[in-house]
Amino acid sequence: MRLFPLATAAVLSLVSSHLPAQPTAWQPRPVQGATEPAEVIATSTAEDWRAIDPENLLVMDLADGGRVIIELAPAFAPIHVDNVRRFARGGWWDNANVYRVQDNYVAQWGNNESEVPMPPGVTRQPPAEYERPIEGLAIRPLAFPDSYAPMAGHADGWPIAYDPARGMAWLTHCYASVGVGRDLAPDTGSGGELYAVIGHAPRHLDRNIATIGRVIEGIAFLSARPRGTGTLGFYQADRGETPIPIRRVRVAADMPAGEQPRFEVMRSDRPAFTAFVTGRANRGGTFFNVPAGGVDVCNVNVPVRRRAG
Amino acid sequence: MRLFPLATAAVLSLVSSHLPAQPTAWQPRPVQGATEPAEVIATSTAEDWRAIDPENLLVMDLADGGRVIIELAPAFAPIHVDNVRRFARGGWWDNANVYRVQDNYVAQWGNNESEVPMPPGVTRQPPAEYERPIEGLAIRPLAFPDSYAPMAGHADGWPIAYDPARGMAWLTHCYASVGVGRDLAPDTGSGGELYAVIGHAPRHLDRNIATIGRVIEGIAFLSARPRGTGTLGFYQADRGETPIPIRRVRVAADMPAGEQPRFEVMRSDRPAFTAFVTGRANRGGTFFNVPAGGVDVCNVNVPVRRRAG
Repeated sequence: MRLFPLATAAVLSLVSSHLPAQPTAWQPRPVQGATEPAEVIATSTAEDWRAIDPENLLVMDLADGGRVIIELAPAFAPIHVDNVRRFARGGWWDNANVYRVQDNYVAQWGNNESEVPMPPGVTRQPPAEYERPIEGLAIRPLAFPDSYAPMAGHADGWPIAYDPARGMAWLTHCYASVGVGRDLAPDTGSGGELYAVIGHAPRHLDRNIATIGRVIEGIAFLSARPRGTGTLGFYQADRGETPIPIRRVRVAADMPAGEQPRFEVMRSDRPAFTAFVTGRANRGGTFFNVPAGGVDVCNVNVPVRRRAG
Repeated sequence: MRLFPLATAAVLSLVSSHLPAQPTAWQPRPVQGATEPAEVIATSTAEDWRAIDPENLLVMDLADGGRVIIELAPAFAPIHVDNVRRFARGGWWDNANVYRVQDNYVAQWGNNESEVPMPPGVTRQPPAEYERPIEGLAIRPLAFPDSYAPMAGHADGWPIAYDPARGMAWLTHCYASVGVGRDLAPDTGSGGELYAVIGHAPRHLDRNIATIGRVIEGIAFLSARPRGTGTLGFYQADRGETPIPIRRVRVAADMPAGEQPRFEVMRSDRPAFTAFVTGRANRGGTFFNVPAGGVDVCNVNVPVRRRAG
């Protein structure tokens, strides 16, 4: 039985009577010969980048030598980010572990169900910092529709979605996004248990959980791990599954000057970024033949790179 | 400098003058209390599912015991799929290996750069089966906009995008999608080298490469692997990186009857599927507080499950 017997394109509008209408105004306009993204980066200038403040860099060293570096987003979840810095400075994650790895979803770490005391000054019940006012953000709208929100785009190099009617914006859950594990509502989590996305963007988490940053280097030390066989990917000790030990987590600003990793992010408010997005939406070069003419906010992959001393 | 100083929502329409206009007709209409996806599956009936033909099941056994099972999509790439069956039946992948694992992108396997002869009957230069006519497909439109194509939806349980104006449809590159590795155009690849997506949907590959199916079980045997450190994630022998040996690959129909894995896919042309999509677009239950009111075609995650004898 075919409820949607689309013999020709002409009947498309007839078959979805019990479905919400899909907007049809959108017609991609592919650009042939767009500059390849790598070329945009290669020809960018120093002004096209912003340095990451070492107060906003979290450096997680795993016991096996892996290093995962996270950029924090205090503009979007200031109290949770303040908590995260306090957890790092209080040694909360030193000798903690990655105890959950769920395929196509998240890797999560902290002191799950253990009795480690919280460092002083941690806000135990932060407010739901799941979105923030558009006001004060320099938003670059993405020129392509989003499947989840009225608008998507970038602000200060972060992928976001936003609702002009309500005047609110939020970080989108993309690959490598970092969020705060929580129990059921109205709990928002303190920030002691964090997760990183290791699969297709779970955008249904947007506005349901505090997003505090993104992994900018070393995500494979989380993604290329055995999956846990418990519900939600929790490792099961009784099945011989071993959590991944964390040696320590530091705020980069607290590391000896010579050891601090230094990164920069492509600014989203300059023409170079628009050229980059155009390149991502219209892949060309010697391999691609059909530019899409569009890209979703989580496949833009904002450039982040090491910077010189 | 802020090129997009969005102080209020009211100025949104003013700031993107050098950008293509983003469609604004789309406003998500969240559904509170939508049935949770797991509940839709639990209450579905036998008629809501279609069995997978064992001719369309590829069973890849890795030497370390991992089993990866792939559903083939002959309706979208018939010549490439015919080749894939011939490669399996000719033993092409027996003792081949997974030689490329690129984080947030693909794992790829076959006989890369080795001199294994092709089995008889393989079409060496298949046509570019990158899209097909809408005609003959029972398409269920997704009621939410797509960032890459005029329309997205499902046909016979497969995630697709399509262009009514041209009357053409194509499989979308989602997590676990399987495609045919190729060199530069106009080569389309024979089907001997395959890849599976292990990251965020690389939709820019749509219509640039032949998609022949999807992994329906065991994707973690590909995704939870060390990443290769070579360009594009190729394993580097001179750095001690070891390809993952494949024991054998079979078409399920050729296996002893008692050993054939049996699967079924939720049909996309029945009300249960619409309820499932509504649930994916409007997560609720005890954890989620803010239903998105939308979902992208690659985050629908069409239900596939084992079926009884």
